Parts: sequence; C-alpha cells; structure tokens
Amino acid sequence: MITLTTDFGLKDPYMAEMKGAILTINPNATLIDITHEVEKFNIRMGAFMLASAAPYFPKGAIHVAVVDPQVGTQRRAILVQTKGGFFVGPDNGVLMLAAQAQGIEHIYELSNPKLMLPQVSSTFHGRDIFAPAAAHLDKGVAPQEFGPEITDPVTPKFAAVEHKKGVLFAEVLYVDGFGNAVTNIPQKEVSKSDTVEVNLHHVSLRLALAKTYAENKFHEPIALIGSHGFLELALNQGSFAEKFRVNAGDKAQVSVV
Amino acid sequence: MITLTTDFGLKDPYMAEMKGAILTINPNATLIDITHEVEKFNIRMGAFMLASAAPYFPKGAIHVAVVDPQVGTQRRAILVQTKGGFFVGPDNGVLMLAAQAQGIEHIYELSNPKLMLPQVSSTFHGRDIFAPAAAHLDKGVAPQEFGPEITDPVTPKFAAVEHKKGVLFAEVLYVDGFGNAVTNIPQKEVSKSDTVEVNLHHVSLRLALAKTYAENKFHEPIALIGSHGFLELALNQGSFAEKFRVNAGDKAQVSVV
Amino acid sequence: MITLTTDFGLKDPYMAEMKGAILTINPNATLIDITHEVEKFNIRMGAFMLASAAPYFPKGAIHVAVVDPQVGTQRRAILVQTKGGFFVGPDNGVLMLAAQAQGIEHIYELSNPKLMLPQVSSTFHGRDIFAPAAAHLDKGVAPQEFGPEITDPVTPKFAAVEHKKGVLFAEVLYVDGFGNAVTNIPQKEVSKSDTVEVNLHHVSLRLALAKTYAENKFHEPIALIGSHGFLELALNQGSFAEKFRVNAGDKAQVSVV
Repeated sequence: MITLTTDFGLKDPYMAEMKGAILTINPNATLIDITHEVEKFNIRMGAFMLASAAPYFPKGAIHVAVVDPQVGTQRRAILVQTKGGFFVGPDNGVLMLAAQAQGIEHIYELSNPKLMLPQVSSTFHGRDIFAPAAAHLDKGVAPQEFGPEITDPVTPKFAAVEHKKGVLFAEVLYVDGFGNAVTNIPQKEVSKSDTVEVNLHHVSLRLALAKTYAENKFHEPIALIGSHGFLELALNQGSFAEKFRVNAGDKAQVSVV
Repeated sequence: MITLTTDFGLKDPYMAEMKGAILTINPNATLIDITHEVEKFNIRMGAFMLASAAPYFPKGAIHVAVVDPQVGTQRRAILVQTKGGFFVGPDNGVLMLAAQAQGIEHIYELSNPKLMLPQVSSTFHGRDIFAPAAAHLDKGVAPQEFGPEITDPVTPKFAAVEHKKGVLFAEVLYVDGFGNAVTNIPQKEVSKSDTVEVNLHHVSLRLALAKTYAENKFHEPIALIGSHGFLELALNQGSFAEKFRVNAGDKAQVSVV
Repeated sequence: MITLTTDFGLKDPYMAEMKGAILTINPNATLIDITHEVEKFNIRMGAFMLASAAPYFPKGAIHVAVVDPQVGTQRRAILVQTKGGFFVGPDNGVLMLAAQAQGIEHIYELSNPKLMLPQVSSTFHGRDIFAPAAAHLDKGVAPQEFGPEITDPVTPKFAAVEHKKGVLFAEVLYVDGFGNAVTNIPQKEVSKSDTVEVNLHHVSLRLALAKTYAENKFHEPIALIGSHGFLELALNQGSFAEKFRVNAGDKAQVSVV
C-alpha cells in the first residue's frame, strides 16, 4: 500500500504521472491519496498533513510525500524506515514529523539509478525517483538496496508551546477547510479545565471547552480538543478562521481559566 | 466495494484518515470517492449526490456518507440495509434519499464498540465509527452485529413539485459545476411538450425542450431532461446559473407550452 | 487498468457515476484519475493532459477521456487502438494527441448497443457509452466487437513553432497550477544555448536557461526544459503566470542568445 501527499493540485497531470510510474513498475500497488492540495512549497503543511493521516494506515504502508521546492539541486532524496512503515521523499523535513512519530530505524539516500526511471528530469523527482522507489519497495526490494545509510536528515523544528506565568504562548498550526483553527496545544495542557481564554492578535475570547462542535449556539465560537488531540478553535456550523480572520502561523495566547 | 461521500474537501487529511481506517481493518477493500465537495453541513446536497451516484454501483456496494454537523451529540449513527446494498452514516437524513430508492429492509443503530476504532473522538465519527463499520461489513460481519434495529430514522422532506392551474411550482435542486440548474421536475411532467416557459425570480424564458446541450446556438439557453431524469436548464457551452444568477433552492415556475 | 480524464470537476457526482458504471460491468477494474479539472469544454487542454500522462502508464492501459461539448449530436464515439494501449471517448480530437504519440493501429466507432448501458441518455455518454466500453474492453472484449472501423477521425491541429529570422514564434500551451508557463518549444530548439530572450505581449525577459526551478533567486524568473520536454517559464517558488499575467494561448517570441 502506497500513500501520496503532494502540493501538485488536482488540475495538473503530475499526480497521475506519479501513479502511472508506480503502476508500470508494480501493477498491483494499492494507491491512496492523502492530499495533493498542500499549499505550494509549504513543507511544514505537508509534514503536518502526512503526520495527521499516517497513523491511520496499516503497518508497513509506504508514504510518499513530495513538497519539493529544491528539486534538482543538491538536496538529497531519502527513504526512511520506521517501526510502522516507510517514508519516501525529499530530504527537506516533509517526511520527518510523521516518521519520528513512528520511531525511525534507518534512513537511506535514494541514489541507485537502477531503482529510478531510466530518464531522470531535474524538475520532477516525484515521478522519476520517488514514485519508482515506492513501487520497488512495495514489490519487496530491500531498503538498503536504494543507497547508503545516512544519519543527518534535515529535521524541521515545529513550534513548541511555551509557558509563561500560567499563559500558553502557542501558534495556529493549521486552518482546515471547515475554518477550524488547530493550535499546537496538546490535550494534556488544557484537560483539567472547562473554559479557556484565547488571545489572538486582535481579539480576546473566553470559550467553553466543549466536547464537540454542536455544543454552542449556531455560529458561536467554541474550543475543543480536535480529532488529532490538539486544542482547536471552531464555530458551530461556520468558519472560525473567517469570522476572526485567523491564519496558519498566527500567534495565540491561551490561559486555562 | 465501499463508496465515500463527504463534505470534508480534498485539502484536509480527513478523507484519507477514513480510508486508512478502512484499509487497516480490511486491506482488500475497493474504495471509490463519490465526492468530498458537498457544501459544508449541507445534508440535502449530500443526500442528492449520493442518490445520484448510488444507482450506478454494483449490487451489494456499501455507501458511506458523512455530512454530520451534529457529530458528537445525541444524533444516532446508523447502518441501512436495502435491497441493493448498504448505507452507513449519521441519522440525519443524508443516507435516506438513496436508501429509499433502493428499498429499505432494515436499519441498525451503530452502537457496538467492538466494531469502532478503539478510541472514538467526539468530533470525527467518519473515521472512528462509520469507516470501521463499512470495513467490517465489507469483510462479512452481519448487519445485526452492529447494534439494535431501529424504525424511526430521520427522513428529510425533499421538495415535491406542486401543480396550480397548469403551472408547475418547482425548485432548483442543484447547480452543477457546468452551471446547469437541475430542477425537481421529473421527466414525465414535461414529456409531452417541446417547449417550456420558465419563470425564475427575475427572468422569464421560453425554452425549446431539447435532447442535448448543443442543440441551441453557442451560449444560448435551453431546457432538457438531464442524465438523472429531471428537467434541467442549461446554456450551450456556458453556465446557465451564472448568466441568470440562479442558485440551489431558487423557486421556478414552469409551464408546458 | 483504466484511466479517466474529464472536465467534470470533483464536486459533481458525474465522475463517480462513470466509475460505478465501469465497476458494475467489471468489478476488478483498476481505476486511476488523470484529472477531472480540464477547463470545461476545452478539448485542447484535455488532449494535452492526456498526452502528458499517458506515456507513464503501463502498456495495454485503457484511457477514457470525456471533454464532450457535442454530446448527443452526430459526433461519433470512438475507440482507438494503438501500439501502446487504448483510448475511448468522443471523436472530437481529445484522444488524438496521446494516441498519435503511441502509434495508431485501428479506430472503431462505438455503435454496438450491447456494449453500452441499457438506457443511453443524450447528455451523458461518459457514463452510458464510454465507461461501459472501457469496462468491456478491460474484461477482454475484442476492439472490433464495438463497431465498424473508421479512418477519418477528427484530428485537432496543435500549434507548431514557426521560425523567422532566428526567432521562434511560439505559444503558451498551458499554465500549470504552480504558475509555470509551458510553451510549445521542444527541447531541441534551445538545447545549444544557455540564455533565451523571451518576448511576451507586454514584457521582454532575458532568462538563463537553467536545469531546475531553484537555480535563480527566490521569486526571480527562469527558463528551463520542463518534465515533458518543452521550454517552460517559471519563478523560483512563485507563479510566473501571475507575475507576468500570462495565460494559455498567449503568443511568445523566443530567441536563443
């Protein structure tokens, strides 16, 4: 089983070319899209998407992620073997949040040209290097066949919550399609409370900490622990992000009341 | 075979998490997307989408639909067994238009925790309850294993056409991506005519009842029976809805001429 | 293996109805989306998408493409057998760019009603004629069973580059989701150079001919040979098309410097 996470969008044929490349090598591969709508070039968002979805896939699944602004330069192509499966993509951090969560065992540089397409372009390694690597791996080629082991992968820093005098200095990790603002505050930081005070750049809100979206009135704001275990700010049947003009990356100060 | 209809969009990882949950339980499941772009929280549109597509799937197919603004509240989770297959989702009507068309045999409440994910969030039953139910059902678990039979499902009323003095008082059910306005007027109401007069809120049109879109001049309006058997208002190679500012839910008065 | 290229979008249930129709006839079919976001009614763009992706699929793959503004009129439905596989769709040119590249062997008109859905609408041949044809073909029905051979398919002219006094008079074939402007200038026309001068309708640029997007500074323009072998104009991590207001169809005059 091979999953795909990219910033290619669904209009262009690029994602299909990757799938064709995989199926040409391994016609029996099961292919599952995680998303192709990562914001263009946004490695952190790609990492977050992959880390959100990967835990729900079977052990041994192969996850390909291509958010790759440095394609064709000296940045390496890697295969990460974890306790739960495999991750294939550029060595720019997009794989690491999900891979670390599963426990990394080995990382190999993809450098064996026999396991790439015969012609490798300098602009589309998703199709020419990563897709073939996933297809061969899924067919049973051993990870160490792909290239030498490396120990210095690029690992992005994801914002950690800071505590200062009882206030959590946090950040909006992600705004989802419903307009829910997912913060980087894990459940344990707020689990003893039933109300939180949230200060965003231009608004201060005192919010009940609810179990689900429909607990407040229609279009009223609410705080809750979302399905990935982080504090989330939402409106009942509306977009919190639109109403309060919140974007990914915004700072949030949160106090448990 | 399992189909998926949601309002999750394709940007977020939610749809992929559902697929991962299914494939973890049943790695051999065949998954087909109907759409993930139902308008957020629009149960009627989800019901219409599912009812449009379900008749074209093989007998025995399992259809999961998640448009679920009341997730985590007292609203029930259900499995509907019909003469043609199975429907899994919230008990808010989203399943019922399609299920009724196939002939409902039994409805069960999804309440057996052994057939859910080990941890059930209060915000994402698509992943934690509906996806596992579909996966287990596809593997052969009997419908009655999921919970007690119920007989009082929530059933939405879909607008019926009214007749007054030879005028059909109708409604635009749906505007598709081409800008075609699909009404709730079934073929039989207009089948004896070759012209219809259509009154929308701000425009009156006398339209030839054509067989297909290309029968009128480029960008000229036309009426026809669409592929689901309803009267549809269209432009040849253009958007009727944009030209005449028509939205789903708009009233239409139609006379056969 | 069956691929699908349409202008149906992902919001409507049409693409799913096609898949259901295929799977009802042939439950074991492997279905791969190339794209459903071809610009509505844009046959040339559909042809370009299909021709971009088809070479990466296995020999014998069946490619269905539906961009079909003349559906229900006298335009024919065809099946093209090539040295590499099969193409199914309307006889309006959408199949021909990809099919010609593989070497056409035979073209058959789809006219055998036994290999269509029992009821054929006049507005949705994708579901009622093309999907069933692909499903039956994938199951092993011989191409000549579908209808009589024809020899006069509609073949669109794709813009060829003209040379005048050392200047290439070219055209932007396509603007991709990253904002890269793909021209119709093949690699061989510029392969001996390291700089090109590009004149678009309102701007003149002298660009280094690079190997990949990241070779210039952030948000600076660059020219390169894209992954399909054509000269492409790009920004490093930005949208060339947006910055220089370029659209598909725009003329470009290019000189090798």
